Amino acid sequence: MADPHEIMLECVNLALAGKGHTKTNPVVGAMILKNGRVIGRGFHKNFGGDHAEIEAINDCGEDISGSDLYVTLEPCSHFGKTPPCVETIVKKGIKRVFVGVVDPNPVNAGKGIEYLLKNGVEVYVGFAEKACAEIIEEFAKYIYKKQPFYSLKIAQTLDGKIAAKDGSSKWITDETSRQHAHYIRSVSDGILTGIGTVLADDPELSARFLGLKKYPYKIILDSSLKISANAAVFNEKPEKCIIFTSSSNFNEKAVKIDTISKAGAEIIPCSKLDNGLDLQKVSDELIKRGILNVLVEGGGKIQASFINDNLADKVYIFTAGKILGAEGVDSLGSLNIDNIEECKIISDLNVTRLKNDFLFTGKFYDYSKEIINLTEKVRNRCSPE
Amino acid sequence: MADPHEIMLECVNLALAGKGHTKTNPVVGAMILKNGRVIGRGFHKNFGGDHAEIEAINDCGEDISGSDLYVTLEPCSHFGKTPPCVETIVKKGIKRVFVGVVDPNPVNAGKGIEYLLKNGVEVYVGFAEKACAEIIEEFAKYIYKKQPFYSLKIAQTLDGKIAAKDGSSKWITDETSRQHAHYIRSVSDGILTGIGTVLADDPELSARFLGLKKYPYKIILDSSLKISANAAVFNEKPEKCIIFTSSSNFNEKAVKIDTISKAGAEIIPCSKLDNGLDLQKVSDELIKRGILNVLVEGGGKIQASFINDNLADKVYIFTAGKILGAEGVDSLGSLNIDNIEECKIISDLNVTRLKNDFLFTGKFYDYSKEIINLTEKVRNRCSPE
Repeated sequence: MADPHEIMLECVNLALAGKGHTKTNPVVGAMILKNGRVIGRGFHKNFGGDHAEIEAINDCGEDISGSDLYVTLEPCSHFGKTPPCVETIVKKGIKRVFVGVVDPNPVNAGKGIEYLLKNGVEVYVGFAEKACAEIIEEFAKYIYKKQPFYSLKIAQTLDGKIAAKDGSSKWITDETSRQHAHYIRSVSDGILTGIGTVLADDPELSARFLGLKKYPYKIILDSSLKISANAAVFNEKPEKCIIFTSSSNFNEKAVKIDTISKAGAEIIPCSKLDNGLDLQKVSDELIKRGILNVLVEGGGKIQASFINDNLADKVYIFTAGKILGAEGVDSLGSLNIDNIEECKIISDLNVTRLKNDFLFTGKFYDYSKEIINLTEKVRNRCSPE
Repeated sequence: MADPHEIMLECVNLALAGKGHTKTNPVVGAMILKNGRVIGRGFHKNFGGDHAEIEAINDCGEDISGSDLYVTLEPCSHFGKTPPCVETIVKKGIKRVFVGVVDPNPVNAGKGIEYLLKNGVEVYVGFAEKACAEIIEEFAKYIYKKQPFYSLKIAQTLDGKIAAKDGSSKWITDETSRQHAHYIRSVSDGILTGIGTVLADDPELSARFLGLKKYPYKIILDSSLKISANAAVFNEKPEKCIIFTSSSNFNEKAVKIDTISKAGAEIIPCSKLDNGLDLQKVSDELIKRGILNVLVEGGGKIQASFINDNLADKVYIFTAGKILGAEGVDSLGSLNIDNIEECKIISDLNVTRLKNDFLFTGKFYDYSKEIINLTEKVRNRCSPE
């Protein structure tokens, strides 16, 4: 028999195929093995659709009684958009269930496992936990804080500059980096930027990857409603464009609001705070629309505002082997830090080479730890061998 | 028989044991094999001492006639501080010589190989060329430009800051990074910094590595002679302290100059240009004293001045998983760059993990390419098999 950890890592890869399609549901992957042979695979394909376990069960071309189910996340025991998976698992006569991590959602957390055990299914918990937990970090944040998961994307020189003195920045990073950035966009629910970037670059904010075009939500922070009705973000799928603007504009710029709304975009009123629009309000509105995974692509000021408001979760820093010196534009705005002791720590820092550039990834907050802790607590309640 | 490239890489490692001791000589490593068995090893231990080939020959405990000599750099054919190595090689009856790269010094370049061939020695050229060339880049710059080889050392946050707003910087990088920085110091001929760093941190500018203390030259750029006669750089080995100051101070601050000179330090007058002391004059004076390998550890202004004057050759950028934001102090001063097209390229960029930090190394100019080109030209003149 293959190592259960290796099988679980294959389930993790299956799960990732659903990234960008599951809204406020977690991505999940599952496999069914009988006598050590894989007979079914599945992943949660989209919000409201079948869960990964059911997909895997339906994928089997043979009787599955007595088989093993591997699943990255604890099967659900509650009615959501679909009936509880645990009932189907019991009914189908699955003998053993291997669970990657426990569901952080308190509606379920441990209850799914309990139901299976009570109904005579052997359950083993805790396989490839780090990987199983990391693919659902945005879901964990949603459960714990009811806020979107914000990833900051920065393309900078070795000395931390995102543009030259005159604002020019095409291209700091090379094609391989830009292609990878489009992959990250393609698995995000939304791309958020500031009006500064929209006015300067007039971007489409779409994701072009492997010859396909994808359309995450285009989220623009534009407190003074400076956006042009002809901006490129309205070219395709204007209905996926969300503009946050100061509430006062609904009186002062009613005609423009009307024009843009008629073009299909959504304009949401938002209160203005000292440092820009109220990002908590922005977060609430995004969650309402099932937008969890948000890639922040603005300039240094926007990036800093998400850090300052404790909303930033992850960074992607593409770093090119170039320098611009002190006159270049800083990758981050002010973080109100006076002393080195107050610096912000990026944990779990990793670096990958992308042709000539390097991609740093790191976290402001590690939600996977909480999921792993929860899993540790449940691990010992497994069936005895 | 072992792969000659692998044996040559072992010679490269031997050569590096001489780093920091050979002044204007290159580091060189050599091995002697007889019937595929290593019978002698050697490296150029210090300026004026035996060359690596002679060290390896003397290391053999048996008759070496008919043996193979591996050496990272073409053996010398001219009288320098010691007699020509090629004569000894022929006299000792060495049968085959494997040369890593050709000597970039025009006094020798190719002549050593020619002499050996004429005297019946088989010569094979071009093994582990990249490694053999990279360990003598400072020597190549010395030969080509008669200037020291300047490496810029920077310890910064992910967003390119070397200190917080209030100037505090202890410690951005972790202990492992700082230890590695001391290794780099320990194999440098000199550590160069500006008076700003001396006044702010009062550093010793020594190298503490593996329980040993080493004393590269302490080179301070201090145009206004602001240094205190009690500065920590004078504590140990004051005779290895070199201060460059504006020529006018020899009249205006004659008493201070006298005090510091009497303490053992050397003070060198230097003309002042728009952006600080004349770095070409500094370079000439360092070369006169056999100081080739200089580690620049100043603040952003000093680092930028070496880049702006086309003197910077290499960078060591220690990068910590921290951010300070726009109010932090930039790692580089102004490079007079307005547009992205003018950005400076760091080539041959590599990154290594050091505990929590990452070390980038890269080059402004690649001297190894010229050495490898030279080697390519000579390669085909080898003895036929």
